[in-house]
Amino acid sequence: MGSVGVLIGQGFDAHRFAPAGSGRELWIAGLYWPVPDSCSEADAAKYEGIEGDSDGDVAAHALIDALLAAARLGDIGSLFGVGADAHGAGMHGIDMLQEVVAHLASNGYTPASASVAIIGNRPKIGTRRAEAEAALSAAVGCPVSVTATTTDHMGFTGHGEGIAAIANALVEKI
Amino acid sequence: MGSVGVLIGQGFDAHRFAPAGSGRELWIAGLYWPVPDSCSEADAAKYEGIEGDSDGDVAAHALIDALLAAARLGDIGSLFGVGADAHGAGMHGIDMLQEVVAHLASNGYTPASASVAIIGNRPKIGTRRAEAEAALSAAVGCPVSVTATTTDHMGFTGHGEGIAAIANALVEKI
Amino acid sequence: MGSVGVLIGQGFDAHRFAPAGSGRELWIAGLYWPVPDSCSEADAAKYEGIEGDSDGDVAAHALIDALLAAARLGDIGSLFGVGADAHGAGMHGIDMLQEVVAHLASNGYTPASASVAIIGNRPKIGTRRAEAEAALSAAVGCPVSVTATTTDHMGFTGHGEGIAAIANALVEKI
Repeated sequence: MGSVGVLIGQGFDAHRFAPAGSGRELWIAGLYWPVPDSCSEADAAKYEGIEGDSDGDVAAHALIDALLAAARLGDIGSLFGVGADAHGAGMHGIDMLQEVVAHLASNGYTPASASVAIIGNRPKIGTRRAEAEAALSAAVGCPVSVTATTTDHMGFTGHGEGIAAIANALVEKI
Repeated sequence: MGSVGVLIGQGFDAHRFAPAGSGRELWIAGLYWPVPDSCSEADAAKYEGIEGDSDGDVAAHALIDALLAAARLGDIGSLFGVGADAHGAGMHGIDMLQEVVAHLASNGYTPASASVAIIGNRPKIGTRRAEAEAALSAAVGCPVSVTATTTDHMGFTGHGEGIAAIANALVEKI
Repeated sequence: MGSVGVLIGQGFDAHRFAPAGSGRELWIAGLYWPVPDSCSEADAAKYEGIEGDSDGDVAAHALIDALLAAARLGDIGSLFGVGADAHGAGMHGIDMLQEVVAHLASNGYTPASASVAIIGNRPKIGTRRAEAEAALSAAVGCPVSVTATTTDHMGFTGHGEGIAAIANALVEKI
């Protein structure tokens, strides 16, 4: 791993927004995004959840893949399985993230730094960035940062079809 | 941040090319890409600029997000605002980048290394890579590299609708 | 490059799947993915290769760009050329990767860690992850990890049009 003693990982994930009226809760970046009390029915669609066997939290999932990759311990699919019967089915991304960090520790690795860029039209991450970074950093046990951007109405993220996230991470051998 | 003392950040940005005849200057990777004198009218469209409140320089913007993320200081939207009245409106990406590095310094961080991958059909980055890397490295104050690729006529970058960039960065505590 | 002595690079690549019946071999993540003997004719299409002047191995190509970027030595296009007459034409991605590592060494750089996230519907990377990581790590001379995900039937990767990869790498000055 070189003389500097640090390993790098790359992660990516994308999920589709659930259809209107699905009743799925919206979870992103380790946070629950409830429909505000003051919200009109039209605006409530902005809080529709994400499809997936788990909560569809692409930010947490991309961070998981970045951390597992840095430690060369597989990816979210190999650890949690795929499909409704999988170990990860029904789990929140942030709980999966904590399990991943424990898995790293039991293999002799500890996260040093991580970051995730969220790509999508909603929710407005900037309004709750500090909260999201605090939640993710607590789960990972190192500084985790969150940025967010859109794709100017282009592609599947720009058309509001889904949401994506790109993450990277550094881990160290304990 | 681990014993190694370095923090990692991830950045992403995408913008739409301006419609033909917009008169927008094309700025990418910190450089202005003027229409060559010898250019036919048909080819001049290849130098049409990018939409955005600033100059739409996705490479500079992705680097900004990677640097801010590494230092956990928000993102380009939280620092420069969004919309025509924003602090960043009308600014060149490379000037925003310099402002970001000053912001990092005043918070005790210094960039160690950064890199950006540009995804799009035009301009041909390889023809001016050394110039772009020199401009971006001077703005950031550390080695910054630029790679470029296309998406084989697939997706919004492949159809020539827009241009995207993925960046990463390492910063150190001063 | 900062006091920590390590440089970071970002890489991206995307290629189109070859049309059915092209006879192109499928090469991804440094491995050849032959059509299994037990495979039905319908399933054989899942082993159709990728278009490109080389073998279209987006994972190897993205790693190449990440490594070249970290050392600020250009990108795959500047090193191997573009088009059927290019130096890289007909080469396997993993052989290009080895040539890139030799090029880094002759410029005083050595890879410390690298990682690639593959985005696409097929092949099922998880079934041969250990093999892929072993092949890529041997070529690069440092730990290289491979993760894989889909885009939930969204965008060009989700529609099965093509396959993409995002990579990052750390290199050190020898």
